[in-house]
Amino acid sequence: MKTQVAIIGAGPSGLLLGQLLAKQGISNVILDRVSGDYVLGRIRAGILEQGFVDLVREAGVADRMDREGHVHEGVELSINNERFRIDLKELTGGNTVVCYGQVEITRDLMDARQAANLPTYYETEKVALHDVKSEQPYVTFIYQGEEYRMDCDYIAGCDGFHGVSRQTIPAELRTEHERVYPFGWLGLMADVPPCNHELIYAMSDRGFALASQRSLTRSRYYLQVPLTDKVEDWSDERFWDELKKRLPADVAATMQTGPSIEKSIAPLRSFVCEPMQYGNLFLVGDAAHIVPPTGAKGLNLAASDVATLYKIMQRVYKEGDKSCIEQYSEIALRRVWNGERFSWWMTNMMHDFGNEFTGDGMTPLMHKRFMQSELNYFLSSENGRKVIAEQYVGLPYEDLK
Amino acid sequence: MKTQVAIIGAGPSGLLLGQLLAKQGISNVILDRVSGDYVLGRIRAGILEQGFVDLVREAGVADRMDREGHVHEGVELSINNERFRIDLKELTGGNTVVCYGQVEITRDLMDARQAANLPTYYETEKVALHDVKSEQPYVTFIYQGEEYRMDCDYIAGCDGFHGVSRQTIPAELRTEHERVYPFGWLGLMADVPPCNHELIYAMSDRGFALASQRSLTRSRYYLQVPLTDKVEDWSDERFWDELKKRLPADVAATMQTGPSIEKSIAPLRSFVCEPMQYGNLFLVGDAAHIVPPTGAKGLNLAASDVATLYKIMQRVYKEGDKSCIEQYSEIALRRVWNGERFSWWMTNMMHDFGNEFTGDGMTPLMHKRFMQSELNYFLSSENGRKVIAEQYVGLPYEDLK
Repeated sequence: MKTQVAIIGAGPSGLLLGQLLAKQGISNVILDRVSGDYVLGRIRAGILEQGFVDLVREAGVADRMDREGHVHEGVELSINNERFRIDLKELTGGNTVVCYGQVEITRDLMDARQAANLPTYYETEKVALHDVKSEQPYVTFIYQGEEYRMDCDYIAGCDGFHGVSRQTIPAELRTEHERVYPFGWLGLMADVPPCNHELIYAMSDRGFALASQRSLTRSRYYLQVPLTDKVEDWSDERFWDELKKRLPADVAATMQTGPSIEKSIAPLRSFVCEPMQYGNLFLVGDAAHIVPPTGAKGLNLAASDVATLYKIMQRVYKEGDKSCIEQYSEIALRRVWNGERFSWWMTNMMHDFGNEFTGDGMTPLMHKRFMQSELNYFLSSENGRKVIAEQYVGLPYEDLK
Repeated sequence: MKTQVAIIGAGPSGLLLGQLLAKQGISNVILDRVSGDYVLGRIRAGILEQGFVDLVREAGVADRMDREGHVHEGVELSINNERFRIDLKELTGGNTVVCYGQVEITRDLMDARQAANLPTYYETEKVALHDVKSEQPYVTFIYQGEEYRMDCDYIAGCDGFHGVSRQTIPAELRTEHERVYPFGWLGLMADVPPCNHELIYAMSDRGFALASQRSLTRSRYYLQVPLTDKVEDWSDERFWDELKKRLPADVAATMQTGPSIEKSIAPLRSFVCEPMQYGNLFLVGDAAHIVPPTGAKGLNLAASDVATLYKIMQRVYKEGDKSCIEQYSEIALRRVWNGERFSWWMTNMMHDFGNEFTGDGMTPLMHKRFMQSELNYFLSSENGRKVIAEQYVGLPYEDLK
């Protein structure tokens, strides 16, 4: 088997990259450990930056997103009962985000890939990357009981945090940066209309809460919970009760509740692997970096990696310039660190660290005072709100040199 | 002896408050442990926010400052050899800072106080504050061998970090927040023209440096040094050599050097005492809070305390409203925390923490990456530069309720 770009991982980044490359006549094959249905079963965020939206349009898969996605012109932050609206559109001079579930994007990309008859191997086993430092890298795997070898020019590692791609870079050549937060997010999905037409990031004396949504009839809510909590500790009733105490009172008073269709606890982590390239292997998205969900940057950072790799692949195959591949890590990491920093900052400002915060030489209470002052300043200053807004809608993608 | 407001400490905040109160016909007496010459011998910063300048004008002591002070319309930050100018005037819609040494301000205030024949007791001993929770507080002290008692309505504790005022608040009623940084600043004063007409805050791979000035013929430079270093370790020659390696190369190439007239090492500390009021005692300036000098906020935060206390004293004595004194701590602390946060943030972004940074759950290298990304973002975004600028020139003073 032979292809130009082997893509490891059939999540949204692998699928988006494959679609973009195919449109440029660059052949690619996607492998995944799991089934397509399993991929679609993962619950993920749904706030898309303009850059992501543009990429999906360039890939020619934007029809349903443009029809069903909801443009959000603002986002709210609240401190107990005080609400502050960040008018994204006004503060950024016209930029917005689109609310469209990651599962929907993935489904659209899968459908498009299938319609175009592009090769995808689900439920592969023992995927291994070989000779990635050479001009002839290849991938081996088992599919439906048979061993395969796929020769390729390049490998895109879109296989997530636990995938094989990052592990293929020798441990002594990569630096892994990690911050694990002392709390998790308990998420609940319910088929009730959202309590507000825009997202609300709520800091309260009882801890953080997020009111988000997938559509006009499906809401997704989150509560900051101790890492020791289990889903079984949280009946739907307890969840709704606690949520109402953390959201602004006027929102809580009118919000609709209903039975959960999904409930789970996720830890919060900041993670970056440097470099993001090793020979002809490129790490994309969660394979190289994880952000805490505060700020909705996870999928969007994966998209900017895809955009950078897409530009590089075009230059390689259209202009025959192979040297440009060396730019990948530096360009991708610059935007990744910006998104990581923004997510870390939003997480620090909006959560209650209790006494768990080990502090950079200060007490948890002093750190709390700094964060309270930070939030007050950034929300009360127009320049501060612009700084939040321009990062929330996403910093511009960087061009190749 | 009897007065309306007893002011403990004859530094610039005590003197400024005394001058302002006297202009409103509110009697006051100032005590200090040390001599006037000693006060004038302290080397301090010299960047004044507009709010400070306005207060000095209101006190009627601005003649020499207005004549000899230099308006700075911008400030520079550099990353190795890359220079970024923060155009304070343009970014804030017209605000600037004034470069005029703290010693000069102090001298002007001392002269004005002497000319107005206002009572000041230098070199007092055993200063003690009594019954500050009652309606009849008083201060006892020894002056020229004799014991005195001074009855008053209110006491302003302007006696610095090591003064008696803060200690008068029972330990169980105050919370002291402190962060000591793992490095110090080695300062050198020389009678040479400044290397640049505006200040340069320089982050380099060798550590932080600051190029500042007192006048067109007197420069003040600083180097980040390990806390274990001693002044004796640093000959003038070594200082200038190191400074040139940390400042942008084009600045270093043309800078004038000369013999030091002062050289000292100061630790960096963030400190806040809450509350800042106890009965009829008000803490002002360093008595309640210390900032690291990155950001030039120390004297300016003292000035905003003075402004708040001045407004309160006017309302008390002109309108007979004693209840307004309860607003002091909350109003003062809000601005103090903003200044503390800004100074902490600038310090974090601009210094090399090496491996000393204990980290909030992350490695020193990860924290460094966040800070590099922070600095890059804030300098490359116009909104980011505005956030730096509006805080550097000083957030507005808050009015009483």
